[in-house]
Amino acid sequence: MNALDQLIELLARMPGLGKKSAGRMSYWLLQADDDFNQALGQAISQIKDKIHPCVECGNYSDSERCEICANPTRDQVQLCVVEQPQDVQTIEATGEFRGIYHVLHGVLAPLDGIGPEELGLQNLLRRSKEHQVKEIIIATNPTLEGDSTAMYIQRLFKDQDVKISRLATGLPVGGDMEYADTLSIARSFRARLALED
Amino acid sequence: MNALDQLIELLARMPGLGKKSAGRMSYWLLQADDDFNQALGQAISQIKDKIHPCVECGNYSDSERCEICANPTRDQVQLCVVEQPQDVQTIEATGEFRGIYHVLHGVLAPLDGIGPEELGLQNLLRRSKEHQVKEIIIATNPTLEGDSTAMYIQRLFKDQDVKISRLATGLPVGGDMEYADTLSIARSFRARLALED
Repeated sequence: MNALDQLIELLARMPGLGKKSAGRMSYWLLQADDDFNQALGQAISQIKDKIHPCVECGNYSDSERCEICANPTRDQVQLCVVEQPQDVQTIEATGEFRGIYHVLHGVLAPLDGIGPEELGLQNLLRRSKEHQVKEIIIATNPTLEGDSTAMYIQRLFKDQDVKISRLATGLPVGGDMEYADTLSIARSFRARLALED
Repeated sequence: MNALDQLIELLARMPGLGKKSAGRMSYWLLQADDDFNQALGQAISQIKDKIHPCVECGNYSDSERCEICANPTRDQVQLCVVEQPQDVQTIEATGEFRGIYHVLHGVLAPLDGIGPEELGLQNLLRRSKEHQVKEIIIATNPTLEGDSTAMYIQRLFKDQDVKISRLATGLPVGGDMEYADTLSIARSFRARLALED
């Protein structure tokens, strides 16, 4: 196997890339500027040395505490629980939330040996007491695992004076009923909102 | 801009990758095995040092002459002209061709300053004389530029005793008439084949 086949094989292991797109990329890299290849190669080799989970919330950061945790203007009493660091970016992009985050780096999956301890859920309880959090918004994915993780967190906080909420599920904005799945439509019925006049 | 944003930005410059898929890859790399990241980073940094165009045909190779040019069992009198090195792989995958290749690394594009000299078409003439080539199969893409490049090559060889052919255009096998473009259908009419009984 020559260096080109090796590169294609390595690239094809990345998520969302098949043999064909990995091939297209490799041929593109062969015609790319060498400075670009050096920069990209180095960026990939060094990414795990440079970026770490924030010691506070688990979000990825190049410093010990992430920008959000280090920002005193963020609302410390509203805490949003997400599965993955990339969910933080997604929510930040909406501009809808000004509180702090807690990244689980996973969901409860008993069959895979991931229980409350592996997710560090006691840490979430400790943090929310420290910050005297008033509301926890659970933004785990609307999947079976995301739902059961949300339920577990709800029960974990049942003796605390903390409001627990969960992101609404329903029809995606701009979507078409025809293409929505039955479960989303069912949930959007149950969670229907009264229109005021 | 931190190292993570930099990595996303670099990956997003690759063909077929947008900001979103570059982000998904970067987060995946943060959780990947460090050995994998080192291997991929190095493979990208070094690819241009390890792989070069074959001195004979222009196909990419890790040695001076590519495997096909170095293979004495390939039919030296049939030569297939392609635009890019990846086209060699595509044709090899069909198992349909046992001759040698000539990679142009482009097509005639006078507006971009790419003329016969930039494509090294005299080199193609020289090579085909050297190998006493009997047939040249032009496999440039069925685009405006690919067609005019094919026509130029045809004229270049008009005084030579060489059969010139061009890959057939028409309906893709397994395709549906309904989804074929008009031009392909038009061409498949003109190039229709008589059925024997």
